[in-house]
Amino acid sequence: MEAEIEFIPEGTVTSPKGFKAGATFAGIKKKAKYNLDLGILLSQAPCVTVGLFTSNRIKAAPVVLCQKRLPSKTTRVVVVNSGCANAGTGEQGFCDAVGMADLAAERLGVSPDNVLVASTGVIGQRLPMELIRDGIKRITLSADGGHALAKAMMTTDTVLKEVAVRVMGNKFIVGGVAKGSGMIHPQLGTLLCFLTTDAKVDIDFLASALKKAVDISFNMVSIDGDTSPNDTVLLIANGLVGNKIIRRKTRQAVAFQQALNHTCIYLAKAIARDGEGASKLIAVTVTGASSTGEARSAARTVVSSPLVKAAVHGSDPNWGRIIAALGRSGAEVIESKVDLYISGICLVEGGVPLPFNQEKVVAVLASGEVSIDLNLNLGRAMATAWGCDLSEEYVTINSEYAT
Amino acid sequence: MEAEIEFIPEGTVTSPKGFKAGATFAGIKKKAKYNLDLGILLSQAPCVTVGLFTSNRIKAAPVVLCQKRLPSKTTRVVVVNSGCANAGTGEQGFCDAVGMADLAAERLGVSPDNVLVASTGVIGQRLPMELIRDGIKRITLSADGGHALAKAMMTTDTVLKEVAVRVMGNKFIVGGVAKGSGMIHPQLGTLLCFLTTDAKVDIDFLASALKKAVDISFNMVSIDGDTSPNDTVLLIANGLVGNKIIRRKTRQAVAFQQALNHTCIYLAKAIARDGEGASKLIAVTVTGASSTGEARSAARTVVSSPLVKAAVHGSDPNWGRIIAALGRSGAEVIESKVDLYISGICLVEGGVPLPFNQEKVVAVLASGEVSIDLNLNLGRAMATAWGCDLSEEYVTINSEYAT
Repeated sequence: MEAEIEFIPEGTVTSPKGFKAGATFAGIKKKAKYNLDLGILLSQAPCVTVGLFTSNRIKAAPVVLCQKRLPSKTTRVVVVNSGCANAGTGEQGFCDAVGMADLAAERLGVSPDNVLVASTGVIGQRLPMELIRDGIKRITLSADGGHALAKAMMTTDTVLKEVAVRVMGNKFIVGGVAKGSGMIHPQLGTLLCFLTTDAKVDIDFLASALKKAVDISFNMVSIDGDTSPNDTVLLIANGLVGNKIIRRKTRQAVAFQQALNHTCIYLAKAIARDGEGASKLIAVTVTGASSTGEARSAARTVVSSPLVKAAVHGSDPNWGRIIAALGRSGAEVIESKVDLYISGICLVEGGVPLPFNQEKVVAVLASGEVSIDLNLNLGRAMATAWGCDLSEEYVTINSEYAT
Repeated sequence: MEAEIEFIPEGTVTSPKGFKAGATFAGIKKKAKYNLDLGILLSQAPCVTVGLFTSNRIKAAPVVLCQKRLPSKTTRVVVVNSGCANAGTGEQGFCDAVGMADLAAERLGVSPDNVLVASTGVIGQRLPMELIRDGIKRITLSADGGHALAKAMMTTDTVLKEVAVRVMGNKFIVGGVAKGSGMIHPQLGTLLCFLTTDAKVDIDFLASALKKAVDISFNMVSIDGDTSPNDTVLLIANGLVGNKIIRRKTRQAVAFQQALNHTCIYLAKAIARDGEGASKLIAVTVTGASSTGEARSAARTVVSSPLVKAAVHGSDPNWGRIIAALGRSGAEVIESKVDLYISGICLVEGGVPLPFNQEKVVAVLASGEVSIDLNLNLGRAMATAWGCDLSEEYVTINSEYAT
């Protein structure tokens, strides 16, 4: 049974107790929407930290560094920049990532080993270390600095992605910030995401909880089928709420998992909705699949199809493309059993196209949120994936990114 | 050793001996560039015919019918329409496909079993059988009717795809027509392709030759990652040139394979170049891979990446996206070994970015053909894949296709 989730007003990554953050404009980007491109997150106590990273074989230097330093029970700081991904930069890039952590450690008086780093932006260019050195000196931290941190992470994002939640009756909070609107695809269709909590959590449970939450959130988002070398999700627990440590298979563990799931799904949907050039959020739910793996694969394939995405963009009720994408997903599909609904309107039942009111379907497709529901009528497994429409604007944004 | 290939001037699917074709405007489409939407291909003698079809689990009715009738040693006719895919149409759709074959059989006085059908266009709508009945009556066939047939197959294609070749010193000809500019992805990234030859060919060799040729051509083309329910490649041999039958592992077999490969690669490249909204042909060649499978996967992943495609569209030398796509391809990659060239200019050597002349790279990216060469320096396997840039026009075309 699900308990009630309470969203913290103006919640962000610094909403849990004992976290501070701040950001500055270091000049790594030529221009930034909020004039911020370098940020720091600090916990006043050492944290239990776990992470999940890109499946890309080309891993950015900050990912390699985080993987060396995690899991950890002593994390204090995350330092992040936008404007340069520090990926495809070889050994020099790794040294620069270490250098960035060292600079933050020196500034904040913590051990360099307890600093994590993340970068996002153009691939294949060196980090401008002088700008980062000067920028880190200028950053001041505050308890509501999560908002600034969220802004400093943005690249082509148009809106902030931040949230914090509490499960009713529990004292701990889970908060998070994320960025990402291009190069977004499962696995770990992300970006960067930093999750914090003031709960005290057993490290093994923390790792399994993160995996579960990411599987149903960031791993179910697709913007463009590209997976970045920088994808990073960190979950940082400082224990300052003073609870009894949360372990697997307890009531507290259920509440924590629930809070984490809500946080991740909220951020994942925010990322999908803010996909490059997107004007609509698309949610594809597949039910009646033979297995969860097939439901996931079917939902992700449909939400990733450029033709489905372009049709939704144009509010074109070209439902055949949905069926075609389903058919190539690898999931078991028997055409004569499939039901298809678009935002609640049934277009196909048992594989047979139904006559439909074109105007009504165009109208639901024209709204800001479009749901596509497919019942395969073969089993009991289900999954939801999120994505966005494909617009001319996506192409324009990505034709002129580096230059 | 490769013999010399001779391209037949104005070669098409009716260039081999004994084939005729013709087309008409049946009114299945609202409008058609060349005012043709229904065509027929006829052989004056029974043909040995093999086919390859979509891997999509949702198969269009004409695909199901062709799969029932092939392989065959008695094919006489192919009838094809554009404007309606007859896919997602259930049992009724199958009956309509049979009906379309029957109408052509009656018109031409052949057995219905010896007629194959193909359809392309909007998914999920019934074939307008009355229009097809009337249209088939109006078609007249001629020895240069291949051009009209190629036109009648077009949907969003902007140029005709047709070719015929001969291997020097051999009498037989291989010809073909193809269509397809959206929903194009391996496997069988084609759409529709009809290949003909006047050679007499053993049916088992014919099947294996087609598989080989398609693997290095249509299966290496990607426009948009979508695989259609209608993908069909037919290879039709009427034997009218009167040669000794071609069997596996003979000199004639080598010549035939070579002619077939050239025909398929020519048509595959034409499809890539004419991708919806495309302004450039992109050829990605991966060398030094550990296995052919990995080379193929790497080349196809890079050529399919929306971010790579958009960067090429904007002549943006954002080479990091190429490395990122390579990294997620599943192929074994060691970053510190990779060399990357764009149209002959080396940008990365042994994983290290080289300084490059930005203007020069922008200039080669601005040309109509862009080659991306990746040497993984791990083994000896290689593969080439073809695709096109991603333009705003692609989205516009696909936002308003059905309506």
